[in-house]
Amino acid sequence: MNSILIKNVLLDGRRTNVLVEGNRFANLDAPAECCAEEVYDAEGLAIVPALYNTHNHAAMTLLRGYGDDKPLKVWLEEYVWPYEDKLTAEDIQRGSALAVKEMKASGSVFFSDMYFDIEGTIEEVAKSGMRAAIGITFLDYHSKSQRDEKLARIKEWKDPTGGRIQLAVCPHAIYTAGEETFRKAVSAARENGLKIHTHLSETRQEVEDCLKAHGTTPVRYLDSLGVLGPDVIAAHCVHVDKEEWDILAERGVTVAHCPCSNMKLGSGRFPYELAVASGCRITLGTDGPSSNNNLDLREEMKFAALLAKVAGDPSLVPAAEVFKWATVNGARAFGIDGGEIKVGKLADAILLDMKKERLQPCHNLISNWVYSADSSCISATLCDGKFI
Amino acid sequence: MNSILIKNVLLDGRRTNVLVEGNRFANLDAPAECCAEEVYDAEGLAIVPALYNTHNHAAMTLLRGYGDDKPLKVWLEEYVWPYEDKLTAEDIQRGSALAVKEMKASGSVFFSDMYFDIEGTIEEVAKSGMRAAIGITFLDYHSKSQRDEKLARIKEWKDPTGGRIQLAVCPHAIYTAGEETFRKAVSAARENGLKIHTHLSETRQEVEDCLKAHGTTPVRYLDSLGVLGPDVIAAHCVHVDKEEWDILAERGVTVAHCPCSNMKLGSGRFPYELAVASGCRITLGTDGPSSNNNLDLREEMKFAALLAKVAGDPSLVPAAEVFKWATVNGARAFGIDGGEIKVGKLADAILLDMKKERLQPCHNLISNWVYSADSSCISATLCDGKFI
Repeated sequence: MNSILIKNVLLDGRRTNVLVEGNRFANLDAPAECCAEEVYDAEGLAIVPALYNTHNHAAMTLLRGYGDDKPLKVWLEEYVWPYEDKLTAEDIQRGSALAVKEMKASGSVFFSDMYFDIEGTIEEVAKSGMRAAIGITFLDYHSKSQRDEKLARIKEWKDPTGGRIQLAVCPHAIYTAGEETFRKAVSAARENGLKIHTHLSETRQEVEDCLKAHGTTPVRYLDSLGVLGPDVIAAHCVHVDKEEWDILAERGVTVAHCPCSNMKLGSGRFPYELAVASGCRITLGTDGPSSNNNLDLREEMKFAALLAKVAGDPSLVPAAEVFKWATVNGARAFGIDGGEIKVGKLADAILLDMKKERLQPCHNLISNWVYSADSSCISATLCDGKFI
Repeated sequence: MNSILIKNVLLDGRRTNVLVEGNRFANLDAPAECCAEEVYDAEGLAIVPALYNTHNHAAMTLLRGYGDDKPLKVWLEEYVWPYEDKLTAEDIQRGSALAVKEMKASGSVFFSDMYFDIEGTIEEVAKSGMRAAIGITFLDYHSKSQRDEKLARIKEWKDPTGGRIQLAVCPHAIYTAGEETFRKAVSAARENGLKIHTHLSETRQEVEDCLKAHGTTPVRYLDSLGVLGPDVIAAHCVHVDKEEWDILAERGVTVAHCPCSNMKLGSGRFPYELAVASGCRITLGTDGPSSNNNLDLREEMKFAALLAKVAGDPSLVPAAEVFKWATVNGARAFGIDGGEIKVGKLADAILLDMKKERLQPCHNLISNWVYSADSSCISATLCDGKFI
């Protein structure tokens, strides 16, 4: 079993030695002379949990900065869709490779992806040492044979890394996937124990269209189909009313909040007050790089905490809370036993360089990490017990 | 005269050689064999204008992360003020030294500061190679002899760097400086050709208190005192109505917009629609690190552009516009002949490492810089014709 001794590291304000055995934290107070295969001198570094990005379309790095600042319809119809139409499976693999490198450099060890031609993305994640939930996307637009192929892929799925990659089932959204598509996709997910990842109540238009088509709002509509449950990760949830938040919380749904994307596309401010009060599990996603335009979950933490406060309450969503969204909440949503530096937990972590000006002085490390740091403060990232 | 040849650099999408002579750009298409004292191979780097931070309290790095996420009154009364009471001139110099290093690392070549015991801050800026407008702060709270000392300091001011540092006059805000303090400070500034830097209409409370005390709103009140003019830099301006925006624009006032601070302290969303429509000169400031919590003007650009859009219009404040706020607008507000890569302009610039994942692919460099980059993409910063 491989082992790493991370020596002289700062953990919760004290200096200690952290022992990793296999892919888990084995001892947070290990003796300095403890024998390990690899010794890493972390003098001047602090250890914090790594980041889990719960909503992404990673290969869209290829469209970074393409058609920015345009009205939504123009951006989609004149830029995104025509560009995506030309993408080959090879392009998607390249875009995913770029995304994986960017995420590793900014402290993420996991992303939940929703895109097409997933084999190349799976290959890049496998090579990278990261974790991922790779979505298999369902749209009404697909032919019956395409859908059957996807359903077969779900049944025969085997993680090539033995633990780092899971397949997720992604009925795209209520405006692109009808009742039958949702039912088939959700059944396949539940039969095979996979997570369900979808877009939900992202824009006001979606809510209005849903009211017209189904006489009810998106959350209520999906609940009526039996879709909502603790295996569901719903991205966005910007236009969700108080009663709908209670439904999401009761069903145990995880929400993937994507503040940069919601701001950049003009979707609106996430209803932090209602979301937090409901007790629903909130996590953070960057969304695709084309509507962000990076994959930096640290930046996303700052955006979420500040967008919460701008409405008038500086105590809403404190640093420690949003940090939880980006770490342990993200991990738990996908059944990953990590997101915390605790004995027995999966060894996913970031080492922060405390000599960086942005981390000084250190009245509160989490506050510095959320509000002040950037990726230049990251010295190393550990995933599944290995430096990646 | 010192000279630098920046070879093989990307400028506006083309590869060229940029010649700096003295402290100005001399040639943007210099021959590769052009003789210069120093040759800098910028292969794989792009040159963009550096950043100008127009509202700061730099030494407040010392309070970074101290008392975050508290209601405003608690934060000020139980954290900030008691801490500041204990600061010595030496502490302030140390805090400023830290701030200067952080700003250089994140691409700023200038900051407009408002704090106390300014001599140490001036010394740190002089050593650093950066530019600054160091504010001399006026408050009603000061004794007559303190005020006279400040007025004398204004008269005898000499820039120790011969061009990089200016003194600015800072009547703090309408709620801390009464009519007489404003009049004295503003006269002293105008007699000595110095800029005037103040806080204005930051919170709803300030507007309400002003209405009670003076029967009018803060902008109208300062205008009635004859304060507003093209030499004034007003920080925040969150609670400013349409007619007030027209007054600010007509008087030629520069606004220092501080999105992170306005969000973090719950002050509110800057009225981008009105501000932009008025034609007023808008610049960007980080505000003090205690209400941000960093001094990264690149991050501030992204926050401004996205906070504009969240209200529903993704085309409001495009990347190129906010980039102008952070560069040439900031320079012009303080009479600095820089902020653009043009022959004859002051040689202030950033070299970006185009190999960084966050800058790839490059459909639009400014969009990548504003929305996707972070300080890890900065290879070098040039100020006043020298690498700093």
